Amino acid sequence: MTFKFKDVYINETSTITGPYESEGPLGKYFDLCHSDLYFGEKNWEQAEVKLIDEAINTLTRKSKVEINSVDAFIGGDLLNQIAASNYAMMKVNKSFIGIYAACSNSTLGLILGGSLIDGGFLNKVITFTSSHNTAAEKQYRYPVEYGGPKRKTTTFTSTGGVAALLSNETGKIKLESGTLGTVIDSGVTDVFNMGAVMAKAAADTIYKHLQDTGRDISYYDLILTGDLGVYGKEILKEYMYSEYNIKLKNYNDTGVMLYDIENQPVYAGASGPACASLVTYGYVFDKMKKGKYKKVLLAATGALMSPTMVNHKLTIPAISHAVSLEVIL
Amino acid sequence: MTFKFKDVYINETSTITGPYESEGPLGKYFDLCHSDLYFGEKNWEQAEVKLIDEAINTLTRKSKVEINSVDAFIGGDLLNQIAASNYAMMKVNKSFIGIYAACSNSTLGLILGGSLIDGGFLNKVITFTSSHNTAAEKQYRYPVEYGGPKRKTTTFTSTGGVAALLSNETGKIKLESGTLGTVIDSGVTDVFNMGAVMAKAAADTIYKHLQDTGRDISYYDLILTGDLGVYGKEILKEYMYSEYNIKLKNYNDTGVMLYDIENQPVYAGASGPACASLVTYGYVFDKMKKGKYKKVLLAATGALMSPTMVNHKLTIPAISHAVSLEVIL
Repeated sequence: MTFKFKDVYINETSTITGPYESEGPLGKYFDLCHSDLYFGEKNWEQAEVKLIDEAINTLTRKSKVEINSVDAFIGGDLLNQIAASNYAMMKVNKSFIGIYAACSNSTLGLILGGSLIDGGFLNKVITFTSSHNTAAEKQYRYPVEYGGPKRKTTTFTSTGGVAALLSNETGKIKLESGTLGTVIDSGVTDVFNMGAVMAKAAADTIYKHLQDTGRDISYYDLILTGDLGVYGKEILKEYMYSEYNIKLKNYNDTGVMLYDIENQPVYAGASGPACASLVTYGYVFDKMKKGKYKKVLLAATGALMSPTMVNHKLTIPAISHAVSLEVIL
Repeated sequence: MTFKFKDVYINETSTITGPYESEGPLGKYFDLCHSDLYFGEKNWEQAEVKLIDEAINTLTRKSKVEINSVDAFIGGDLLNQIAASNYAMMKVNKSFIGIYAACSNSTLGLILGGSLIDGGFLNKVITFTSSHNTAAEKQYRYPVEYGGPKRKTTTFTSTGGVAALLSNETGKIKLESGTLGTVIDSGVTDVFNMGAVMAKAAADTIYKHLQDTGRDISYYDLILTGDLGVYGKEILKEYMYSEYNIKLKNYNDTGVMLYDIENQPVYAGASGPACASLVTYGYVFDKMKKGKYKKVLLAATGALMSPTMVNHKLTIPAISHAVSLEVIL
């Protein structure tokens, strides 16, 4: 299901990161980079709340938009009960729509925000998401301190808080359309191979987006997925060709772009809800504004992994929500 | 933030329950009642997935609407990663919007569905939610088998799966408007007193709804909260009067209505995302169609409780999303 938006713009964004992200190749594109993973807080979860606090504060400062003039917030994160989002929202006395689409939170938030603005219900919306490496590892697999070895296919949950201000006031980045994803079962049970879990969901959404809009893949001068990593990226390319006869060119995965995979201890690359937005809001928007990319399709990918269901030996579902972004020069 | 809807109707609903709900005073109003908590599944979580499966199947059967003609599903549940919803959606190849607002999932789903229909993005939407007593107790507090004593203020998570079909085709129940809630901190840390955690959130949303619509509380001939329970209900009434000078008449709490509190082992009454919808879709809609109630305000309440954050000694946030329902006779 693809929504075409008439007048929705991403007027401003903010990107907060931890040390691994700032030391990666895109470090200079982020607004604020922390040198440790605590940020002065007592534990990983409170540190993740702080990522969202800072993303919202940085966004309102950069955009000169006061929180009081924002109609609603839309957000979610990886913690159980989207706790980081809820605790951040406790400090912001504003209408809140909590969402859960794992690492595709960012694009689901943009689609919902765009719909509510274009539908005439809201004027100004802030969407946000976050992830924190050690908070996520502790909850989903093992505490990092445990030091268990990992396979090469493992992705590395990025640490970041990201936010975007959406409105119908003309800005440089237009939210042109959005495609809601479908929950996909790829038959994978391996919690250390999220790229394989999610690749088919990305393919399904990209294909449906092209069908719904009547576009050829060449319409976009950049296609991004997030966060398949090195191996998932290859699976997606092969699957798109074998299943849909579509050759992915001008394509990259934000999980591959965020880190220097050769030289940082990040296995197959980045993951986490922050990943797709850090790369898009930081690096890609900068290049769009400079004319390098005009039309970008961002298909963020979420592994809907539940440790409880994994313990039941069930396969891991995945979903991908995609947005089409255009620069107005 | 209140959305007024032009043409959105709840065309059909479905209500699936466990044994405690069917043995309560509203038992005869539900579509399907199970006599145990397993429903033929191996564990509580798979049983909760089945509640959603059955709610969707019952809804499509009752409404004679095929799943293929539904544009999108909106849903969430209490399990970490809204796992019950995601695993149910894995069997339904349809666009899915995952939400998390704890026990106010149902009304958040209705507001989003209504907005997407009235905004012209979707024609037919199914919203759903679920809760399962023993799955929730195990995740949030202690496994029920542990047998720990509980305080009188404890609420009892209802077991149920509920779904609603929304469209712009005129039906008997009109979704007239919806008010998005704000995350509220009441300063409560007690995981056995969710009524106290949530009462202020309900008050905040009911008050904002009246302000936004310019209505007096007497506009509604039934005001419902879900799921404050016996003690939370009294806190709400006192708070509404002391804070806003509003006397709640024609008011009840769905957590108080679902069970026979005197004679069932349910402490302060029902809770869980299913609670508000079981009572509303089952009992209240029946009475609305028979002319007993014309205008109903349903403010479902969600305690955004995270066991991790509770272990950090933090207060428990809450949210309430409200919908205004009108019967067309």
